[in-house]
Amino acid sequence: VTTARSRHFGDALIQRVRALGHPLCVGLDPHLDRIPELFRRGSMAPGDPETAAAVEDFLLAVIDRLAERVAVVKPQIAFYEQLGWRGMEVLERVIARSHERDLLVLLDAKRGDIGSTAEAYARAYLEPTAGAPADAITLNPYLGLDSLEPFAERARSFGRGLFVLARTSNAGAGDLQDLAVEGAPLFRKVARSLGRLVEELRGPESGWSSLGVVVGATWPEQAEAVRAELANALFLVPGYGAQGASAEDAVRGFERGPVGLEGGVVNSSRGVLFPAAADSDDRGVWEKAIDAAVERASAELANAVA
Amino acid sequence: VTTARSRHFGDALIQRVRALGHPLCVGLDPHLDRIPELFRRGSMAPGDPETAAAVEDFLLAVIDRLAERVAVVKPQIAFYEQLGWRGMEVLERVIARSHERDLLVLLDAKRGDIGSTAEAYARAYLEPTAGAPADAITLNPYLGLDSLEPFAERARSFGRGLFVLARTSNAGAGDLQDLAVEGAPLFRKVARSLGRLVEELRGPESGWSSLGVVVGATWPEQAEAVRAELANALFLVPGYGAQGASAEDAVRGFERGPVGLEGGVVNSSRGVLFPAAADSDDRGVWEKAIDAAVERASAELANAVA
Repeated sequence: VTTARSRHFGDALIQRVRALGHPLCVGLDPHLDRIPELFRRGSMAPGDPETAAAVEDFLLAVIDRLAERVAVVKPQIAFYEQLGWRGMEVLERVIARSHERDLLVLLDAKRGDIGSTAEAYARAYLEPTAGAPADAITLNPYLGLDSLEPFAERARSFGRGLFVLARTSNAGAGDLQDLAVEGAPLFRKVARSLGRLVEELRGPESGWSSLGVVVGATWPEQAEAVRAELANALFLVPGYGAQGASAEDAVRGFERGPVGLEGGVVNSSRGVLFPAAADSDDRGVWEKAIDAAVERASAELANAVA
Repeated sequence: VTTARSRHFGDALIQRVRALGHPLCVGLDPHLDRIPELFRRGSMAPGDPETAAAVEDFLLAVIDRLAERVAVVKPQIAFYEQLGWRGMEVLERVIARSHERDLLVLLDAKRGDIGSTAEAYARAYLEPTAGAPADAITLNPYLGLDSLEPFAERARSFGRGLFVLARTSNAGAGDLQDLAVEGAPLFRKVARSLGRLVEELRGPESGWSSLGVVVGATWPEQAEAVRAELANALFLVPGYGAQGASAEDAVRGFERGPVGLEGGVVNSSRGVLFPAAADSDDRGVWEKAIDAAVERASAELANAVA
């Protein structure tokens, strides 16, 4: 365990983003039907043990390409759960390899539960001794502020980061999140309710908090509204690339920092993991295609925050 | 796979509840510090392989006590995730044993995500070929109606049941769920938004839907408000017993059926799994204590619905 992972998540993340000059986060979402020829084995059905092995080979190879190029990776846990317990073993190895390669790990789990159950989730993913110890996790606010407390406790004790859903990137996001509550949309009310905790968890170096929020790149105006509520919360911005949002839209909630716009990370999953040119059984061709996809997304985002 | 598990979940559940005369659901939540002496091994730390083995022995023994006494069991997945991949292997065995003993399995996962991620969760837990194939699952509505669609698809194809969070049992539930939206609390608005899907998924035999809602026993008035919105949705009612609600409070949203009040299941976890008298290293003593706890909760609920 390096110092960087036991220190304050907000400080650690923003320091890496500043050093790299771009806020790209890469989603490690192993869609089975898109794993390239090079790594496929057996039936590639979710329950086949060979599938988990193929997914692991693929992801560890991807992580090696990402090292020193991005600050943080974001495994979406559903794609690992889909493979049964063997998938969870793959997740543990993905996290271990990411840490070996000095990448921060933001686990996209969107957990939300109460009391002793929330405590169990926090132990599962935010304790240093957990099998799958992430540096940060995404959370769902529907169960109320008390449901966040066991996670906040790990932010205090172990420097972990938390990203609470505010305005998600999907078409139906507004069904609940935009409902008008006392003159403001619900997502804005959620953001406001996090204010005290965001301030409590601000980093000693950067001033950015370890409590962040999820705001889809597909909704740049909503990102500005959330920023108006939470000056010091980092944004996790999904929806860039494959979901159609531009780099400029993705960083709309960012603020001017010492080396450019900053205040969050922008996720790309499919755009980086599965570029068309990477579906090859030639290792060299695959590596070049992944490198090019990382380079393209990094440069586009570097340009947007310049 | 028996007929009962591939047929319509709402029909299957209510038929069993009617036959037993009570709506008790038992939560299979292995709190590590409460596992009785009889089953404990090694350090009982979450990462110790011995712990997963101890938890499995405990839960399989519990399932054998519950067979033919309750309609449905509800594993809370967080307690399995806490044990790492070995915990997920235990979950698979818990589900398999429950099905062997002809118990329905309602997986308490409170998942909520979008597009291909929601699809991955649905594949992980609702496909017949999944490693952990539950009969029903709990879902979080914050991401909107489109996030429920992959699960609804499994309700249509495989007869699975879905329970969407409306009003949870915790103290902070109201932070979001009670916010006033156009004159009604948010949880009521959530219930109303499910109306079309509840109707679509009604069972041919009972008329009860495979789309239900979660309404905490700790809030009986809110349960009546949800029932006013959704006449045909089954309720999953947590919070009875350990969380302080009475049997009468727990069934407040139920309706008169052919053999008493019906319209959902009432969960008890700690009250049945960990009665004080069961902390023994004598197998016979432990079995009697569990049987007595099941009998007590069943009788109390049978009385409340009579």
